[in-house]
Amino acid sequence: MRVRKSIRNMAMKGVIASAVRTLASSGSSASSTTFTRHLHASAGSKKIVGVFYKANEYAELNPNFLGCEERALGIKDWLESQGHKYIVTDDKDGPDCELDKHIQDLHVLISTPFHPAYVTAERIKKAKNLQLLLTAGVGSDHIDLKAAAAAGLTVAEVTGSNVVSVAEDELMRILILVRNFVPGYTQIVNGEWKVAGIAHRAYDLEGKTVGTVGAGRIGKLLLQRLKPFNCHLLYHDRFKIDPELEQQIGAKFEEDLDAMLPKCDVIVINTPLTEKTRGLFDKERIAKCKKGVLIVNNARGAIMDTQAVVDASSSGHIAGYSGDVWNPQPAPKDHPWRYMPNHAMTPHISGTTIDAQLRYAAGVKDMLDRYFKGEDFPAQNYIVKDGKIASQYQ
Amino acid sequence: MRVRKSIRNMAMKGVIASAVRTLASSGSSASSTTFTRHLHASAGSKKIVGVFYKANEYAELNPNFLGCEERALGIKDWLESQGHKYIVTDDKDGPDCELDKHIQDLHVLISTPFHPAYVTAERIKKAKNLQLLLTAGVGSDHIDLKAAAAAGLTVAEVTGSNVVSVAEDELMRILILVRNFVPGYTQIVNGEWKVAGIAHRAYDLEGKTVGTVGAGRIGKLLLQRLKPFNCHLLYHDRFKIDPELEQQIGAKFEEDLDAMLPKCDVIVINTPLTEKTRGLFDKERIAKCKKGVLIVNNARGAIMDTQAVVDASSSGHIAGYSGDVWNPQPAPKDHPWRYMPNHAMTPHISGTTIDAQLRYAAGVKDMLDRYFKGEDFPAQNYIVKDGKIASQYQ
Repeated sequence: MRVRKSIRNMAMKGVIASAVRTLASSGSSASSTTFTRHLHASAGSKKIVGVFYKANEYAELNPNFLGCEERALGIKDWLESQGHKYIVTDDKDGPDCELDKHIQDLHVLISTPFHPAYVTAERIKKAKNLQLLLTAGVGSDHIDLKAAAAAGLTVAEVTGSNVVSVAEDELMRILILVRNFVPGYTQIVNGEWKVAGIAHRAYDLEGKTVGTVGAGRIGKLLLQRLKPFNCHLLYHDRFKIDPELEQQIGAKFEEDLDAMLPKCDVIVINTPLTEKTRGLFDKERIAKCKKGVLIVNNARGAIMDTQAVVDASSSGHIAGYSGDVWNPQPAPKDHPWRYMPNHAMTPHISGTTIDAQLRYAAGVKDMLDRYFKGEDFPAQNYIVKDGKIASQYQ
Repeated sequence: MRVRKSIRNMAMKGVIASAVRTLASSGSSASSTTFTRHLHASAGSKKIVGVFYKANEYAELNPNFLGCEERALGIKDWLESQGHKYIVTDDKDGPDCELDKHIQDLHVLISTPFHPAYVTAERIKKAKNLQLLLTAGVGSDHIDLKAAAAAGLTVAEVTGSNVVSVAEDELMRILILVRNFVPGYTQIVNGEWKVAGIAHRAYDLEGKTVGTVGAGRIGKLLLQRLKPFNCHLLYHDRFKIDPELEQQIGAKFEEDLDAMLPKCDVIVINTPLTEKTRGLFDKERIAKCKKGVLIVNNARGAIMDTQAVVDASSSGHIAGYSGDVWNPQPAPKDHPWRYMPNHAMTPHISGTTIDAQLRYAAGVKDMLDRYFKGEDFPAQNYIVKDGKIASQYQ
């Protein structure tokens, strides 16, 4: 019921002066110029490609498991009933991948951050009919946004669809690290019982200092959930939070990231991956953190310098690292974060709970419907529009 | 700093009409009758035995690791400087264990719920000099309280010393189960990447119904921390929470346990182990829970019927079970909870974080000091006093 309500709220937010536009008069997309082909769908049947992770034996276990390749957001019948073609695949990388077979003539590409179709400038160049790139979820850094903007494409995500999901997951990871859950679990399944092996580095969250790097939608939700834990809450962002909300959460603004880091027992990364944040946590910046710092990163793997995290985890400067984002994804078998000490890593999962899938599937369907009708999307969903990149990705 | 503050608060709460009493005039403890030997320490040197888990190589890793056998609450020098004898051991079970070598002439026995010295009626009978049983932590069900009361012993715990620790841990376990963390972690360390294997049964906590069985100190702290997650919160207890607090938390009272259970997506056990709660969750009661229920139990293992939990976890009726309490402890290598599906178990750890250790070590020292001086303990610490068992254990 709550899910339906959330979807309803999202749909309502979308009704923002979206005057219905007439269908394209400029003819086929092949003849459209770069800056008109994104504006609205040209008439007729569209070829839509969706890239999702495969579920195999898990697909049948849950009827709401909409985000897998097998269910493909549950929009296949709807799309086909309107005369469109819908290709779905999980095969997205390598020279002969299924995605590349369709790149020449697809109109719309749907992908997710959990199994991202990397939309490079090269692919955009090949995709002569491409108009629209939809991210089922939040986070469109798998797309070369500059190239997409230059090519006149529209990029949009389902803003808000999984921010609660990610914030909850971050709080779980904070607790897992602070309280040293993983070695306890490992002992149990290995037939062991050594309380001291856990307790010597298990703490309460209460009274510790937690800082978030980025206090956008997810960061704010995390801070709200941290409130009753009686921590010292800090945040660094380009903007101060609305004073009333800041007061309510009790978080303190830190204008200078490097001044905030040494104060934090726990650091949570909540910033998008941009040119400014790529490699933000390199060797030097990690060295500025408190010795024994715990780091949670559900944002993007490439915000960290991979080897710097391994080195600091091995030396003990980082006492625990947990997140679900990697560079690249899927993480190869030999990715060193799988094997560094004191980690609590998972595959990219936090934003693809069943609840989140229901929301982002509904959000994608809504945007496709608007695209076919020539209507605008909810304004907050646009990542690239009219050749401009949204501010959070700049 | 917060830890110190908490300790200060605890100490202040203890200053409740504790008139200093004169030292025992009734002579040696050997001549005391059952109902006088608990009242205050008889004069002279005491033999105190502390039973703690051994830390081995972990002891040196953290100077605040007070709860292990090697540091023994950090009170050895203090006790010896006052002329008392302080024996510490982790060897508490079996016919020739170290504890039993001292049972005949010890005056005070200190133990923890994490590595409990089981104080049976038989041991109490042998312990001719025993006056005081102190639990370093919360939960004294390892002691036969009826036998202790009949023998005129005083039993006391450090009430409140680790309630925050346990409540935080419960919230962590709720999130671990709801969001299906463990299979994700396992995939990573096994070199795998199968998002679907996690996502098909991963949910948001938001919008779910969480019920606590018991809303005492820990249950209330859990409900307060759950508040911002936008769940439906229910609680069953003998007493209703203070209306103002109930309103603030937004939790609904359920007088009938069996009426609450089928409503809950998540059930958390927060009741002490008593004759009434032993085996409370047997096959029949688990069957009353919603299919797919998630259960968190950091209270006591014996509240559950061990095999009923295994069977329901195997059938999928219980979709996830997490806790740190077992019956008995340490859990033997072949305890079936180690190997049942969808569990997230650890050794008994939630109440023995470093922060909790600092608090319960200070609480034990405070009570020993009062015992030597013939002063009362903080009233809420008493579990058995003057032959009466505290209400929560009745």
